[in-house]
Amino acid sequence: MKVSSVEAGEVPKGVVSASKRVKRVMSVIDFILRIVAAISTLGSALSMGTARETLPFRTQFVKFRAVFEDLPTFMFFVMSNSIVCAYLVLSLALSFFHILRSTAVKSRILMVLLDTIMYGLLTAGAAAAAAIVFLAHRGNPSANWFPICQQYNYFCKRISGSVIGSFFAVVLFMILILMSSISISKH
Amino acid sequence: MKVSSVEAGEVPKGVVSASKRVKRVMSVIDFILRIVAAISTLGSALSMGTARETLPFRTQFVKFRAVFEDLPTFMFFVMSNSIVCAYLVLSLALSFFHILRSTAVKSRILMVLLDTIMYGLLTAGAAAAAAIVFLAHRGNPSANWFPICQQYNYFCKRISGSVIGSFFAVVLFMILILMSSISISKH
Repeated sequence: MKVSSVEAGEVPKGVVSASKRVKRVMSVIDFILRIVAAISTLGSALSMGTARETLPFRTQFVKFRAVFEDLPTFMFFVMSNSIVCAYLVLSLALSFFHILRSTAVKSRILMVLLDTIMYGLLTAGAAAAAAIVFLAHRGNPSANWFPICQQYNYFCKRISGSVIGSFFAVVLFMILILMSSISISKH
Repeated sequence: MKVSSVEAGEVPKGVVSASKRVKRVMSVIDFILRIVAAISTLGSALSMGTARETLPFRTQFVKFRAVFEDLPTFMFFVMSNSIVCAYLVLSLALSFFHILRSTAVKSRILMVLLDTIMYGLLTAGAAAAAAIVFLAHRGNPSANWFPICQQYNYFCKRISGSVIGSFFAVVLFMILILMSSISISKH
């Protein structure tokens, strides 16, 4: 009787519990990676959002000042990082649920969908900001766009660091999506 | 005997073949979406790569001409779209294999990984180009960057259309990743 049910396609008990343990370990890693990514995006949003520099000289009417709101792309960067950070914090609940119930499948598929959307949003924000940061550093002679980093040195350092932090979170998202699909395959 | 093996966890035959049919249909859709996405990225790369405009006036030494190579971000855009297009064409083989063998799981996980990387690359290229296109249209008074679209009208239309085509492929990639994870869950 036992043998026949194994032949009929049932998986032996030892294998099931090993697969369950692997999934639980992956869920824990998932949880930790989400915390790291949330801190990284929060740091990026704050670093960009508080970057400002006022040059030490001024005319009677004009003060030379750089803030992130001057560039709509940086606004988008701060918003996308904030949204993704909020999502990551909320998703911790679902991730914790996956640690407890490692057999859940539908909620994992939902998570892959949401992760994919957020990954896209974060990548878009980071890449768009990177394009502008590149322009700020190098300028573009053909379009007559001058490198503003020559004046706003400190401001440029802040925004560059901010973009790097955001790309770090992008890599973490890739790992999260991969781990989710491996977990789904092991149900 | 029959009943006990069902109780022991075996899935009834009718359900298995229904799930198989669903997976096959999804594999066919996957195949078609990849072709559409490949055409879309190819079109974007070509449209950006061939965008050039020479203004009807010139001085003795300077010719006013806009080509995509002037802006490194547009070079990145063309490269990322070309790479993703090549990947999509190559991945058709794997996608076709999934139509034939709908039970394959490991190759699907590999595909999710590659899709995720390519999705990120494509999104980065499209978002970076979009940031520059936005700048070309609106300019930025704070940074003294002037809107070059006022002169290069036709050039700007071409590059804008190109970016839109690329974002269309980004959406297709989201659907592809979601469908892959659903297929993996049904093994």
